[in-house]
Amino acid sequence: MKKTLGEIAKIIDGQLANESDSGIEIRGLENISGARKGDLTFAVEPHIEEAKSSKASAIILPLDVTNFPIPSIRAENPRASIAKLLEIFTPKLQIPEGVSDQASIGKNVKLGKNVKILPLAVVDDNAVIGDRVTIYPHAYIGQFAEVDQDSIIYPSVTIREHCRIGKRCVIHANTVIGSDGFGFTTKDGIHTKVPQVGNVIVEDDVEVGSHVGIDRAAMGSTVIGHGTKIDNLVHIGHNCKIGANCLIVAQTGISGSVTVGDNVTFGGQVGTVGHISIGSNSIFAARSGITHNMPEGYFGAGFPVQTHAEWLKMQAAIKHLPDVMKKLRRLEKLLEENQ
Amino acid sequence: MKKTLGEIAKIIDGQLANESDSGIEIRGLENISGARKGDLTFAVEPHIEEAKSSKASAIILPLDVTNFPIPSIRAENPRASIAKLLEIFTPKLQIPEGVSDQASIGKNVKLGKNVKILPLAVVDDNAVIGDRVTIYPHAYIGQFAEVDQDSIIYPSVTIREHCRIGKRCVIHANTVIGSDGFGFTTKDGIHTKVPQVGNVIVEDDVEVGSHVGIDRAAMGSTVIGHGTKIDNLVHIGHNCKIGANCLIVAQTGISGSVTVGDNVTFGGQVGTVGHISIGSNSIFAARSGITHNMPEGYFGAGFPVQTHAEWLKMQAAIKHLPDVMKKLRRLEKLLEENQ
Amino acid sequence: MKKTLGEIAKIIDGQLANESDSGIEIRGLENISGARKGDLTFAVEPHIEEAKSSKASAIILPLDVTNFPIPSIRAENPRASIAKLLEIFTPKLQIPEGVSDQASIGKNVKLGKNVKILPLAVVDDNAVIGDRVTIYPHAYIGQFAEVDQDSIIYPSVTIREHCRIGKRCVIHANTVIGSDGFGFTTKDGIHTKVPQVGNVIVEDDVEVGSHVGIDRAAMGSTVIGHGTKIDNLVHIGHNCKIGANCLIVAQTGISGSVTVGDNVTFGGQVGTVGHISIGSNSIFAARSGITHNMPEGYFGAGFPVQTHAEWLKMQAAIKHLPDVMKKLRRLEKLLEENQ
Repeated sequence: MKKTLGEIAKIIDGQLANESDSGIEIRGLENISGARKGDLTFAVEPHIEEAKSSKASAIILPLDVTNFPIPSIRAENPRASIAKLLEIFTPKLQIPEGVSDQASIGKNVKLGKNVKILPLAVVDDNAVIGDRVTIYPHAYIGQFAEVDQDSIIYPSVTIREHCRIGKRCVIHANTVIGSDGFGFTTKDGIHTKVPQVGNVIVEDDVEVGSHVGIDRAAMGSTVIGHGTKIDNLVHIGHNCKIGANCLIVAQTGISGSVTVGDNVTFGGQVGTVGHISIGSNSIFAARSGITHNMPEGYFGAGFPVQTHAEWLKMQAAIKHLPDVMKKLRRLEKLLEENQ
Repeated sequence: MKKTLGEIAKIIDGQLANESDSGIEIRGLENISGARKGDLTFAVEPHIEEAKSSKASAIILPLDVTNFPIPSIRAENPRASIAKLLEIFTPKLQIPEGVSDQASIGKNVKLGKNVKILPLAVVDDNAVIGDRVTIYPHAYIGQFAEVDQDSIIYPSVTIREHCRIGKRCVIHANTVIGSDGFGFTTKDGIHTKVPQVGNVIVEDDVEVGSHVGIDRAAMGSTVIGHGTKIDNLVHIGHNCKIGANCLIVAQTGISGSVTVGDNVTFGGQVGTVGHISIGSNSIFAARSGITHNMPEGYFGAGFPVQTHAEWLKMQAAIKHLPDVMKKLRRLEKLLEENQ
Repeated sequence: MKKTLGEIAKIIDGQLANESDSGIEIRGLENISGARKGDLTFAVEPHIEEAKSSKASAIILPLDVTNFPIPSIRAENPRASIAKLLEIFTPKLQIPEGVSDQASIGKNVKLGKNVKILPLAVVDDNAVIGDRVTIYPHAYIGQFAEVDQDSIIYPSVTIREHCRIGKRCVIHANTVIGSDGFGFTTKDGIHTKVPQVGNVIVEDDVEVGSHVGIDRAAMGSTVIGHGTKIDNLVHIGHNCKIGANCLIVAQTGISGSVTVGDNVTFGGQVGTVGHISIGSNSIFAARSGITHNMPEGYFGAGFPVQTHAEWLKMQAAIKHLPDVMKKLRRLEKLLEENQ
């Protein structure tokens, strides 16, 4: 896809700052810092100053910005303009409605209206698929599992038996919902499996990234509360109850039987021990290691976790540690001399 | 699935503590802390006190427990009762024996008796599948690979060529056995691949979680010893030799060419450097960073790893660090004044 | 596969150190430390001394090594000999050219010459597959995606729509290229998805391990520079620009909108915050937590990151901390007594 800046100005009903720029060739759209030669970007306040150093070949700016160092189109609403161009530069996907004859549909499956079940998807016996659900190739929906209306299941997702996915959920590629929890009893050094006969319930409006593992409960349900968003490569152990509207950033691991309140944010690579309770409206900085119950409204960091303020203080103190040791030796010497 | 408490009492041959509770509606089974309205739970010693605060609608208790604050059924063996109910509340899976005509079976494949090879599974040329092995949809068994009897291979598992899985193993969804090890030689900043021509041998009774990557050896075999259990999202580098009956908790990473003894436990998010040896019967707390050879029977923690006792002492000392600095400044001042 | 040492000596045109060893049975090839009974290994300088304690049944050595404690074959080039034997002990894979009639190929797909598209692979509408590309079973190539010549796509890889893979790339099993970035706006505690309409560009000669997630840009492209090698279970956020010839070791997480120069090495389990820039020719030790912009040629470690030298000094100081506290108490006491 290539367009000249002149063509683009017409499409978005904007004005070229300089008519002689109309022949500049645009091959893609990018944000300010990522843009390179051939890219078009856009800026609105407070990013206009920063945009002056962009490497983009051209930029869309608000009407009142003049004398800009990069070839520019001025438009009434730069954000809306770029959205319009994105549709042109990124051809829309065509996903046919219905069940592909290359998909595998088991016995007693209930299919809603206007589903899109793509080639080589598998929906196993007794599963229930809601209206307008999209299931990509190589996804597996297990026996008695349910995917409620308007959800999207990306390629190679595994949803094991009896698990339930709510409405308007997005489950990204290669994620696994409902693997067995990591439960063993050990006797004389031999580990024996504890049957994991529960399931996972993912409530409405949840988004789950790629390569996430949410283990089924030993008994009962592992629950992901409505509106919660989970990033890539996250582990959630069996019997966890995650609240509503949480954010769980990449590579975080939540051990088994942890209860998390609503609106909790876990930064990347956080870890928790099992069997604890974490209060609502808390934030844990990246790499926090949560080792015990947490109250509501906590802002934590570090391992073992402490308040973010304490953590900052401690980090500052640690930096001075070699200095502390020097001073201590000096004091010891002084004192010896004084005696 | 719904049953009244009265119906459930009959099924498990138990006594309702209070006949007036017989109409209570039960929709699911849960553990003590996870139970909510509509759930039935159970308790035996030492959990009976704790169960008094459960939010379950009802509970199954031993015969001798009376005056319980939650509607109760008394039964001779509450644990056996719940197991019986689990079978009723969780319909059994029906997995047909034989090879699905939607599966893809290569040339010269040897199939054992009573195998279950489900739709869209792929068994490539010259692979060997033992008796009673189950292979779920979208699993891939590579050329010359072997899966020994009674093992279960869940959906979207990849077992690359020449790798061998033992008897009674469980490989959870989307795990990869036998990807190339991360081996490159670098010259003038260019990285050139070192061929990875070995394999992976997973011995008997091993369970491997979801999204685990076990890399094939550059030459020879990466080995997972019998009875070892691996949690989700674990990385095991090429040429590792993991002993028998180890427990490797989620998100742990073991670098290449590490030798691990028997009965070693790695807590979650542990990491190791490569080319070291770790003695048997050791335990490493979550987040340990193991940087050198380790003796037998070690209880380690921290990064760089130290004994767990030392780590606790050090963590306590670090907490006092801001205080130490204050004291130091006071001492300096005192000393100045004294001189 | 079994061969006697005598047979092997003939195959590689080598001399048995001791004719009486010719009947020793060899079942596999292994490196020095991994070898066990039944294995053949090899050694050249500087590994010959170390090889004396190998548990291998036999070893291939240079012509000038005598009096070795393990049954030996002397050969002109031990490394070349072992390469020849590997071909015999490891049967070659037979991957047929062409498009399997069990693969699913969409509309308007462009296929190059001599492609190998295996059973149950899916190439969706408008995708472009270059010459000699291999696509394994259960891989999914999305709409308008491109895979350039000589690349290998392993099983259950997902390459989402519009993403582009360069020449001679290797994408290991179950990796996901082009999942939506983790982008939400939050109002009144409700998280609303920011559309992720960009793509991922993987340049030439890149190798990507298993279970890697590289998220598509919100707008524009997430870029992996040519020659970069990525290990297993790595997360790369949306809009990252990773330079050429980098090494990214297992379980590292690079947050969104991070720019990385060329020839940067990230050890295992490294993490970065988002929206920073990391200079070329830098090395970050395992577990580094990179919290701000980094210059070129930096050797970093620790969290928050500092120079590796500072980190070593600080770790040493921390170890003395309990001792520091003791000394401090002694000083306080002395001073009190002196006053």
